[in-house]
Amino acid sequence: MDKFPITQNISRLWASIIVDELAKNGIVDFYTAPGMRNAPVLAAAHYNEDIKTYSFLDERALAYRALGRSKVSESIPLLTCTSGTAMANFAPAVIEANKSGLPLVILSADRPNELVKTDSNQTIDQTRVIDSHTCYNLNLEAPNEALSATRLRTLISTAIGRAKINRRPVHINFPLREPLDNTKGYISQEYLKASLESFHKNGAKVISSAYQNYQMEFNLQERLVKAKNLLLVIGKLDGKKDIDHYRESLKSIRIPKYLDITSGLKYEFCLEDYLTPNFDHPEVLSVYEQNPPELIIHIGGRLVSKHYYNYLEKTDCELLHVTNVDFDHDPGFSNTQKIICDPLSFLKGLAKLELEQAPPVMWHDFVEKKRAVIEESGLTQPFISKNIIEKIDLDYDLLIGNSTIVRSFDNFVSSNLRRHVKVFTNRGVSGIEGFMATLMGLSDENDRPKLCLIGDISFKHDLNSLYMLNQAAREKKNLTVIIINNFQGDIFNLLPIAKEKDFLDLLTTPHDDRFDKVIGAFEELEYSSCETKEDFNKQVLNALKNQGVNIIEAITDNASNLELFKKLKTVKR
Amino acid sequence: MDKFPITQNISRLWASIIVDELAKNGIVDFYTAPGMRNAPVLAAAHYNEDIKTYSFLDERALAYRALGRSKVSESIPLLTCTSGTAMANFAPAVIEANKSGLPLVILSADRPNELVKTDSNQTIDQTRVIDSHTCYNLNLEAPNEALSATRLRTLISTAIGRAKINRRPVHINFPLREPLDNTKGYISQEYLKASLESFHKNGAKVISSAYQNYQMEFNLQERLVKAKNLLLVIGKLDGKKDIDHYRESLKSIRIPKYLDITSGLKYEFCLEDYLTPNFDHPEVLSVYEQNPPELIIHIGGRLVSKHYYNYLEKTDCELLHVTNVDFDHDPGFSNTQKIICDPLSFLKGLAKLELEQAPPVMWHDFVEKKRAVIEESGLTQPFISKNIIEKIDLDYDLLIGNSTIVRSFDNFVSSNLRRHVKVFTNRGVSGIEGFMATLMGLSDENDRPKLCLIGDISFKHDLNSLYMLNQAAREKKNLTVIIINNFQGDIFNLLPIAKEKDFLDLLTTPHDDRFDKVIGAFEELEYSSCETKEDFNKQVLNALKNQGVNIIEAITDNASNLELFKKLKTVKR
Repeated sequence: MDKFPITQNISRLWASIIVDELAKNGIVDFYTAPGMRNAPVLAAAHYNEDIKTYSFLDERALAYRALGRSKVSESIPLLTCTSGTAMANFAPAVIEANKSGLPLVILSADRPNELVKTDSNQTIDQTRVIDSHTCYNLNLEAPNEALSATRLRTLISTAIGRAKINRRPVHINFPLREPLDNTKGYISQEYLKASLESFHKNGAKVISSAYQNYQMEFNLQERLVKAKNLLLVIGKLDGKKDIDHYRESLKSIRIPKYLDITSGLKYEFCLEDYLTPNFDHPEVLSVYEQNPPELIIHIGGRLVSKHYYNYLEKTDCELLHVTNVDFDHDPGFSNTQKIICDPLSFLKGLAKLELEQAPPVMWHDFVEKKRAVIEESGLTQPFISKNIIEKIDLDYDLLIGNSTIVRSFDNFVSSNLRRHVKVFTNRGVSGIEGFMATLMGLSDENDRPKLCLIGDISFKHDLNSLYMLNQAAREKKNLTVIIINNFQGDIFNLLPIAKEKDFLDLLTTPHDDRFDKVIGAFEELEYSSCETKEDFNKQVLNALKNQGVNIIEAITDNASNLELFKKLKTVKR
Repeated sequence: MDKFPITQNISRLWASIIVDELAKNGIVDFYTAPGMRNAPVLAAAHYNEDIKTYSFLDERALAYRALGRSKVSESIPLLTCTSGTAMANFAPAVIEANKSGLPLVILSADRPNELVKTDSNQTIDQTRVIDSHTCYNLNLEAPNEALSATRLRTLISTAIGRAKINRRPVHINFPLREPLDNTKGYISQEYLKASLESFHKNGAKVISSAYQNYQMEFNLQERLVKAKNLLLVIGKLDGKKDIDHYRESLKSIRIPKYLDITSGLKYEFCLEDYLTPNFDHPEVLSVYEQNPPELIIHIGGRLVSKHYYNYLEKTDCELLHVTNVDFDHDPGFSNTQKIICDPLSFLKGLAKLELEQAPPVMWHDFVEKKRAVIEESGLTQPFISKNIIEKIDLDYDLLIGNSTIVRSFDNFVSSNLRRHVKVFTNRGVSGIEGFMATLMGLSDENDRPKLCLIGDISFKHDLNSLYMLNQAAREKKNLTVIIINNFQGDIFNLLPIAKEKDFLDLLTTPHDDRFDKVIGAFEELEYSSCETKEDFNKQVLNALKNQGVNIIEAITDNASNLELFKKLKTVKR
């Protein structure tokens, strides 16, 4: 191995991984100040053949030297120093670089948190010195085996991507515990082996670039046309008026595609459009595990499905991420290339390529079986989401609440239906509050009928928005809110923690409240409730036809909901 | 007037200006929470016919409503609230918007600083609540007459530009003093008149847009082709490998152009290329005052010349700013349109237009007279800058120090010379430290001869960089440092404050140090000094021919320097 990793202890190993990842990102000019705390970084730089070091005793002059380099070099110079006042001496040149639009990487060695917070010598809060004068700040934890080399490399690559795209300094603060010299320290064999393997991969963990309108480069075209097993994944979009163009581009791309609910377009496509079902199902996962895609193109922001990201982290495929939201998004630690641009410009380029591929594993029977199982159940969340999509055949807006509700909608794939429903979510940080108010905001823009589904806990949070809805009813807005009341925050019942019954009440906010009286206090609101499938379907269709604000309280039963979720997981193709 | 400005007191007047400027920027959907501190904002919104208000009592629900609106509206919703905990209730929805890539404008009323810092009721530090979850934060001062309506509008327009470009929330914090109701308060007639005039201007103060590569729109082409009196201004560029393309594009654009020293290209052009001299001269200023340009195209970042910005603020011309550095740059408060893009793509478009205009006022005699006056002087800063440019005819890099030195170089325009000298500066924040280290950084990239000019105070700051230069001399780098020793920081002698002689010593760091001995302590460095014009020219030419590191200490005399500057200002065409 030409890039000799130093592995005498975990501090040296991490420094070695970080320095290797930096070099793979093209960061090869290291302007180094001496010091004990950053000895692991200095050793790693010294032993890495791709790296050239420029050492000087005074950090301020060193930083100005790196600044000078950044004026003429196409690659980004790196500054590294020890803990204490050292990094504060970088400040003048870093501020000059930031104001001049010149990128720099500042890799400061630091003492670990337990020394920072106990006022050890040569120790300050290093995260607050230059961080108003950088475009990105990464505060690492001290080296430990709980964070894998792959994840660590993702963090480093992401930071360098920001420096390249924003052309401003980035700061990586790197706390280190002793030993800092080459004293032998314990590293488990498993961790060491996986870490060393990461050195053998060519190229940076993630390569980032930014464009306003993307014009596909020849190399990428070649790669895509040659790939045998492509998967197109559509995450969160903020299309607004572009949404119709997204739909048209996607229709013309005949490769397997997975549409997240936050794309807003999920129900516009069906199996005949090469749609694949949600990863949150053992059968789907097993198909993808047996036959993994060679290359995934992920358009847009975050997906709802956690299983998708778990799958990604275990799978060795290329992942090309194209987005103008969630710039740093990579929770599967799997991106190989990131393109920041208007995703529509990318999709238009993609649509022009000859990518015709075999249709995906045919899911028709699988979906039909799932549909049948759902229809057999009582008034459950899957029944509700399935029937809303299938039974409502008009142009309307659908705002979907968080927690189990959005997952239930995300899981449902219609086999042969396409619906012109515009789907909205709050999946930026996925809070459960504020949904009725968000619905009001949607209705401030236009008069299309609107439907919002929330749980009982969401409803209670947002109770005073009933005053808004009452006003909207006076103005004859056509709004429907469906409260799925299962008398608690349900999502934790679906997780392994549900076995810890002793404190489950604190986790699940149980109650026995019905909402007829509190809604009844608002005279303009139409209230109804239902406990059966038939009543539910009838009430929803009526509500959408009526002008005014309708609130439907759908009483569901946790036990049968849970049972249905379990049963659905057993469905095979 | 359809947008009725409320003017009973300064708080009401400022609120009225801010709200008008917001509306002109297309911010017309105001989601308002009630409260006394923001009464001026509420009144201004109420009386502005372009604005629609949506009021709700609870700030959290209100913010989610605005969030919903931002999902579907092409314009950006605004949230406004009173002081205290009110804005903290915006936080959940603002964070969701930030993570989802949705723009919002948060206009929070606040109490003025004297109440914040004395723990008045309903008072917190409002600048630190949501400011990690926005892309831009503007903390206004409380209304007062020291800030003009034009400057205030510039601040508001700049903030909205960021929201549009970054598609994230921006926060404007607006402290207000009593009276907040319509109680009559004193406003001077002059201030009121100028403020009211600002309402009559159509359109936003600055309109911002962003592109990777700009393709000129038809409307703008039309505007440029029709403009009778264009001026092209080139500020700070960070061209690197693009610098040759900049030169070629500029050569083909036959309109008057003003090149700042930080463009790096100033000496590549002469009067025949339609170059105009620096604004820091009464004669040049008076020509521009008599015949102001109709439209200025400013490419790149900040200029050195303060007189240019003063001129802009007094002159009523369109200013189109095209930049990928210094995004918010507008110290003349004069931008009418801002385009964030690769400036080269804009220049290429500009070069294609038929813009042939009359050459600028011919400055040939003027420049020749200036040259003669400079040559008659002793060893002064203008003599040094003039002779370095005129006498050195080879490809080299020139790093110019700050304070009076950069101004002396910026002021000099050759009449008939074009030089292939690549000019570098540290003009991001214009510190005087770190120049010899910056020179080292430039030399880390390539071996072209390099010349650096600094003052004595800069030299003392950077003294330990002599260790770096000593090493560079061993490596036979060709570097020359010229220290202009006038035995003090000189710039303040040129300013009116020089009359306050009592404490001038504290302002001007006077000393009587010569640098022969300290430089002589570094054995590899070649030292020489000069006090005459002839010696100076000889030593510089010798230094550039010799490999190794040469340091020239040029002794200049403040009195004759000052006298020359005064004499130069009297030169007429």
